[in-house]
Amino acid sequence: MSQLQASLDRIAAEMAAAPRRGRVADYIPELACVDPGQFAIAVCLADGTECVAGDADTAFSIQSVSKVFTLAMALGRLGDQLWARVGREPSGLAFNSILQLEHERGIPRNPFINAGAIVVTDALLSGHAPREMLGDYLRFLRLAADDEAIHINEAVARSETETGHRNFALAHELAAHRNLDHPPEHALGAYFHQCAAEMTCRQLARAGRFLLNAPGLPRLLSPARVRRINALMMTCGHYDGSGDFAFRVGLPGKSGVGGGIIAIAPARAAIAVWSPGLNPQGNSQLGTLAIEKLARAMRWSAFG
Amino acid sequence: MSQLQASLDRIAAEMAAAPRRGRVADYIPELACVDPGQFAIAVCLADGTECVAGDADTAFSIQSVSKVFTLAMALGRLGDQLWARVGREPSGLAFNSILQLEHERGIPRNPFINAGAIVVTDALLSGHAPREMLGDYLRFLRLAADDEAIHINEAVARSETETGHRNFALAHELAAHRNLDHPPEHALGAYFHQCAAEMTCRQLARAGRFLLNAPGLPRLLSPARVRRINALMMTCGHYDGSGDFAFRVGLPGKSGVGGGIIAIAPARAAIAVWSPGLNPQGNSQLGTLAIEKLARAMRWSAFG
Amino acid sequence: MSQLQASLDRIAAEMAAAPRRGRVADYIPELACVDPGQFAIAVCLADGTECVAGDADTAFSIQSVSKVFTLAMALGRLGDQLWARVGREPSGLAFNSILQLEHERGIPRNPFINAGAIVVTDALLSGHAPREMLGDYLRFLRLAADDEAIHINEAVARSETETGHRNFALAHELAAHRNLDHPPEHALGAYFHQCAAEMTCRQLARAGRFLLNAPGLPRLLSPARVRRINALMMTCGHYDGSGDFAFRVGLPGKSGVGGGIIAIAPARAAIAVWSPGLNPQGNSQLGTLAIEKLARAMRWSAFG
Amino acid sequence: MSQLQASLDRIAAEMAAAPRRGRVADYIPELACVDPGQFAIAVCLADGTECVAGDADTAFSIQSVSKVFTLAMALGRLGDQLWARVGREPSGLAFNSILQLEHERGIPRNPFINAGAIVVTDALLSGHAPREMLGDYLRFLRLAADDEAIHINEAVARSETETGHRNFALAHELAAHRNLDHPPEHALGAYFHQCAAEMTCRQLARAGRFLLNAPGLPRLLSPARVRRINALMMTCGHYDGSGDFAFRVGLPGKSGVGGGIIAIAPARAAIAVWSPGLNPQGNSQLGTLAIEKLARAMRWSAFG
Repeated sequence: MSQLQASLDRIAAEMAAAPRRGRVADYIPELACVDPGQFAIAVCLADGTECVAGDADTAFSIQSVSKVFTLAMALGRLGDQLWARVGREPSGLAFNSILQLEHERGIPRNPFINAGAIVVTDALLSGHAPREMLGDYLRFLRLAADDEAIHINEAVARSETETGHRNFALAHELAAHRNLDHPPEHALGAYFHQCAAEMTCRQLARAGRFLLNAPGLPRLLSPARVRRINALMMTCGHYDGSGDFAFRVGLPGKSGVGGGIIAIAPARAAIAVWSPGLNPQGNSQLGTLAIEKLARAMRWSAFG
Repeated sequence: MSQLQASLDRIAAEMAAAPRRGRVADYIPELACVDPGQFAIAVCLADGTECVAGDADTAFSIQSVSKVFTLAMALGRLGDQLWARVGREPSGLAFNSILQLEHERGIPRNPFINAGAIVVTDALLSGHAPREMLGDYLRFLRLAADDEAIHINEAVARSETETGHRNFALAHELAAHRNLDHPPEHALGAYFHQCAAEMTCRQLARAGRFLLNAPGLPRLLSPARVRRINALMMTCGHYDGSGDFAFRVGLPGKSGVGGGIIAIAPARAAIAVWSPGLNPQGNSQLGTLAIEKLARAMRWSAFG
Repeated sequence: MSQLQASLDRIAAEMAAAPRRGRVADYIPELACVDPGQFAIAVCLADGTECVAGDADTAFSIQSVSKVFTLAMALGRLGDQLWARVGREPSGLAFNSILQLEHERGIPRNPFINAGAIVVTDALLSGHAPREMLGDYLRFLRLAADDEAIHINEAVARSETETGHRNFALAHELAAHRNLDHPPEHALGAYFHQCAAEMTCRQLARAGRFLLNAPGLPRLLSPARVRRINALMMTCGHYDGSGDFAFRVGLPGKSGVGGGIIAIAPARAAIAVWSPGLNPQGNSQLGTLAIEKLARAMRWSAFG
Repeated sequence: MSQLQASLDRIAAEMAAAPRRGRVADYIPELACVDPGQFAIAVCLADGTECVAGDADTAFSIQSVSKVFTLAMALGRLGDQLWARVGREPSGLAFNSILQLEHERGIPRNPFINAGAIVVTDALLSGHAPREMLGDYLRFLRLAADDEAIHINEAVARSETETGHRNFALAHELAAHRNLDHPPEHALGAYFHQCAAEMTCRQLARAGRFLLNAPGLPRLLSPARVRRINALMMTCGHYDGSGDFAFRVGLPGKSGVGGGIIAIAPARAAIAVWSPGLNPQGNSQLGTLAIEKLARAMRWSAFG
């Protein structure tokens, strides 16, 4: 058995026994009833090897992990003109805060806070109906993961539409600053659906391979743009816990309130992890810990 | 001639001709009179090779670049207990802002904003007179750079003591929150002197070698702590331009208002650059551009 | 001719000739086309005397002046339980700011900023359709002004519904904090209509008589509650210009972006003034000046 | 016995028995040891009558009540040019907050928050030594109160000098914005001493007579300026509890952390009250309640 597989097995065993598992997101009814005892981890190496442990074939709601994929799509389609509408700096504030947005006159700090991701989705709509943009999005996910089974959970999307007042407030605030090309309800309709995509850890690790910049793997974006997405994940990928993730784990990553995290060891490995309980910063508690342990065991670090 | 030397020469030539050079910091009289036409770059490779271009043997005021060295000293001496007094998250606000400090009840966001660096210096004082701490600090710099000539410019230190009202406000705010062990004037006395150290780019690049985690180079800190300092430089090293530096350059770095920047290509190279004109975020304008060009030319990136 | 009439005539003449008239609100298309050259002033004394000058029978959009009337209705109907949902402190921030709302966890600072007024309107809805609440509101206005001709301008209300993104953001933010009993679009529908009421200065001065606490005038609220509404107008009636209005004029008052202001000389006079151009704080520029002149001429002050 | 005396006696008896007395300020050691069981009230009517109840001849530290007197002095001496350095708007934030100061580029919101009062004191220094300004200040207090016995408690002043880090931070922040003409330690030296003046309720009520604008009473300022000071006390006199004081009491007033409050019923009465326990907004808990009861009993209100 490879050192990687041994590490994953050991980590999965430790996580199964972990007493403090964080708190499952309860603001979306559909997410609140997920069993917090679950854990999964999957890794795709640059040479094509795949290793998994735990519930790696259980699908979960990727939520904000989706922001990596829509950012990649938007950069591929619009290029650097996207940066006129969204910044590239860490936010230093809670993840759905409207404060900074007003302070910065409608330019969200970065594409990974909710306001920034809504702008990215609005940019992807580019005059079309949400349905079309979501078709493109699913095609992108399926191509990246090489798996046609990936789908969107309509019940989850609807659930957010009904209760997502914070996001409606953000979208109207963006519209007030004229940084939304489509009506708030259209941009949000697309956004809630993108967040409601469901993937397994195995699928998510595969879908992250294009961020390795390694030969022989799917290439969905130029190497320069891949590096930039990784840079944004490093500085902004975990809301107000981004600095701590960089400090402890040392790899670019992006989390979602469904408990999933994608992380990249540049040129080496795409990692996906999932455990539904969140830490106070809104990132998967055991997921963060598992990636920290894996990075240490494999000596994967962006920092030497 | 090596590819590296050729790149440095080409970059130095381009920077010499650059029309927009930024604005020299004018809040310290002693810094305001520096000639903005100067530029220097120096690189130490993991194998010991050194290459320089431009005014690489002209000394400049390292200012906030000093925060990397005092953080390294404090981590070596106090270990993780330092983190009870200072955070590890990007600040998302201007570099000397007192806002966040109050909001976070006296715990500065990270050790690279002024408030955080004052706490680190206060921790290094540990009951001794500023003179002793500054002796240790100079010994650390000289050991890291392997050069006994490094010194502190008393006139610059005094100049800050007289006009540094923002820093006095920060120190008193820290004291009000009981996050200062020594009187504000002692902690600031030491802090202003550490910032007033003068180094050449050649010395600064050498002093950065311990951050490469490469065999055969001076080892002043454990590899794990080196990675963590690099992580903090990546997320917090350039004030409210940290995200942009990570995005454009892709390497951990730390800037100072004297116009110097240190950057690290992990396991590969320590880079020092200097040009006195600053961009609106308070980082060397040509220095940032030069490191971006060098990283692209040498394909150095933390992100694949 | 009375001293009051002479003062009004002189003030109206001065205002007609004033070169700097402020800037007409342009965020509502229907308001943007109002002629900025207009000016009106009307006063109802405690003894029943009425004096007017200028365009005192021209109707204008009362906008935020309506908040005084809905607050009076809500206090009469709900009493002090209203204060569990809205505060009584000056806001210290721009009038439609969402910042403070988030900071204070969904409790608007006072009933005269937009968020607070939306909460008051939501409280008045109390489970009924907006149409019913608006019927009550019109009856209140007509009773207070003793004039059945007061109506709501549907085109203005519709215009706000279409472009009022800031208010939609506030309402959704309130809903996110569970401080809205009805769907945001219902509360806002009622709110936009109440703001779109049109009154003349003559009608508005009459409608303010119940705030004099003077014998022989319509009594719509207990004297204690009237004093409290006056107190709120004094500390919070002019957004971030409230302190300046109290300082310069010395009377409680409430302004609207349509250019109207109501002010009360307790026990003495209800004053209405209108001029469409606004000062930088969003209050009628000439209206403020006219009330300041009138208060000085008549020696009306709450402060001795 | 007059109705006023009967009211004062009844209120003093109720306050003596009050179970919840607030919390004595503990940030100044010299204030922390004051007996919280004390209560005093004193009233000077426009006709010269004086009535007192409770410990009306016990001296206490007037602290921020002093800001009313220094503002009166500064307006008398400098007139409206003072307003170039300090605003007139309620602060909407805690009383010693440095946030707003930075946001407003060094112009404190009003003369009653600490930063604003430090600017007023700095303006009064006008190039002289603190000792001279304090001599003028004592003369002003003694003249207003018609009592030569008023003095400054040096031990209290020294106590603040040693522990007042928040105020030092504010003063340095003002200096950084070039809104301080004298070194921070000089302005603060004078400020700490003015706050350390000790007065009895009887003296304080007398000292407030000039704010009545009533014939036959000491006239230390023009009637227009008196009205304006009253306006500022109404909108800004109780930190972030100003709106609530106006709402409940309906009179202009100014509180201090020593537990004293001065309040003015324009043209009718100057009221002083003292009880050391503070409410969460930093204003005397029983003092506020006592003035509310007195105003209701005597039907004194600025609002009709």
